[in-house]
Amino acid sequence: MTYTLVLLRHGESEWNAKNLFTGWVDVPLSEKGVAEAKRGGTLLTDAGVRPDVVHTSLLRRAITTANYALDAADLLWIPVKRSWRLNERHYGALQGKDKKQTLNEYGEEQFMLWRRSYDVPPPDIELGSEFSQDADPRYAGEPIPRAEALAQVLDRALPYWESDVVPDLKARKTVLVAAHGNSIRAIVKHLDDVDADTIAGINIPTGIPLLYELDEETLKPTNPGGTYLDPEAAAEAIKAVANQGR
Amino acid sequence: MTYTLVLLRHGESEWNAKNLFTGWVDVPLSEKGVAEAKRGGTLLTDAGVRPDVVHTSLLRRAITTANYALDAADLLWIPVKRSWRLNERHYGALQGKDKKQTLNEYGEEQFMLWRRSYDVPPPDIELGSEFSQDADPRYAGEPIPRAEALAQVLDRALPYWESDVVPDLKARKTVLVAAHGNSIRAIVKHLDDVDADTIAGINIPTGIPLLYELDEETLKPTNPGGTYLDPEAAAEAIKAVANQGR
Repeated sequence: MTYTLVLLRHGESEWNAKNLFTGWVDVPLSEKGVAEAKRGGTLLTDAGVRPDVVHTSLLRRAITTANYALDAADLLWIPVKRSWRLNERHYGALQGKDKKQTLNEYGEEQFMLWRRSYDVPPPDIELGSEFSQDADPRYAGEPIPRAEALAQVLDRALPYWESDVVPDLKARKTVLVAAHGNSIRAIVKHLDDVDADTIAGINIPTGIPLLYELDEETLKPTNPGGTYLDPEAAAEAIKAVANQGR
Repeated sequence: MTYTLVLLRHGESEWNAKNLFTGWVDVPLSEKGVAEAKRGGTLLTDAGVRPDVVHTSLLRRAITTANYALDAADLLWIPVKRSWRLNERHYGALQGKDKKQTLNEYGEEQFMLWRRSYDVPPPDIELGSEFSQDADPRYAGEPIPRAEALAQVLDRALPYWESDVVPDLKARKTVLVAAHGNSIRAIVKHLDDVDADTIAGINIPTGIPLLYELDEETLKPTNPGGTYLDPEAAAEAIKAVANQGR
């Protein structure tokens, strides 16, 4: 017997479309992103995958993606849990900056280090600055970061994985996690036990549910790497993500 | 000191617009209903009312209303709880029927008895029929009704009020309940201690937040009847609801 987990990266946001570093800035989905989210729900239905519970970040692009996908799957009514621990990687001082401009300004090496190194975070965001969340009531009292590399995302996502997601899986619920490129990569790294170099090369496409079947003893995948519900679209999209900022 | 409760009836649904008895049939909001929901969120913001938690029914017209209102208020991220106990009154065998046609077919007296009597339910819905929910997975294992009068709505809503809403209030959370004409009337009857005749004359307008301040000892309103965040629009809308089916 296995447990069923579905990871869903939010659809395109208005800042994805504008090629800006977003991080924790709470931008809405673009029109294309809404369509991607709805299609994600249709893919769930077509595959006969019915989540019993959904976990989201505190960012509206993930929450709205879950809402549109679940509405399309006639599952808008299932229980919901949310946590900042599923948020996108905090992009620190890069939040709000143009990706291409940042690439030109800092050069390929520094740019790729910030984007894809496992444990080198970008510079800290300035408290009180335009794209900082230090005064945002949704994070009141939480130990929130000022910049993160993927390693820090894993460090803050894993406690939630253990405290909230694993118990749902063990209760034999099909769990949907609607989150972000880097919080999903953190979960994937944990599940697939891949090293820092390997995870650097793994990109998660938007809006295509990624299904894992987890062994009920080890909680490790019986389908390592997971299974995209639309493998062809996923392969195309992964290529596009890898070329972002070029 | 008082606790703050906000009741929000969903915006117009596609079947409100068609003048059909809806009950537990899971119809979406109309375009007008979406606009009403967004405006409900703006009214919250303008009044400085910030819900800390939202409770919804299991029906998409209430869930979607909460989502649009909270998105407009920049509060899409707050915790959510859902229960069938906040659902609309189950309209039994009338579900899916035209209100005007039902009025003509059964006459004013029977029609008003079904619509507004406190404890005379409509005929039971036939199990397995087009508009029955007996096979709907969202109600699996729950003691769901086949028809309800307002008295039965109160009977099944109150346990949830006590078990889930009151603890949130006592934790000093501002609580938003996004629900339906009759589940909100049930809560209003309980809070305001009005008799069966009086509640029959109380109509709840769609999309206009109804604010109650509850005494922390008695949990009874210090503003009996509540306060609509747009009193003029509420007065207009209440007249229109009273004339439905005419």
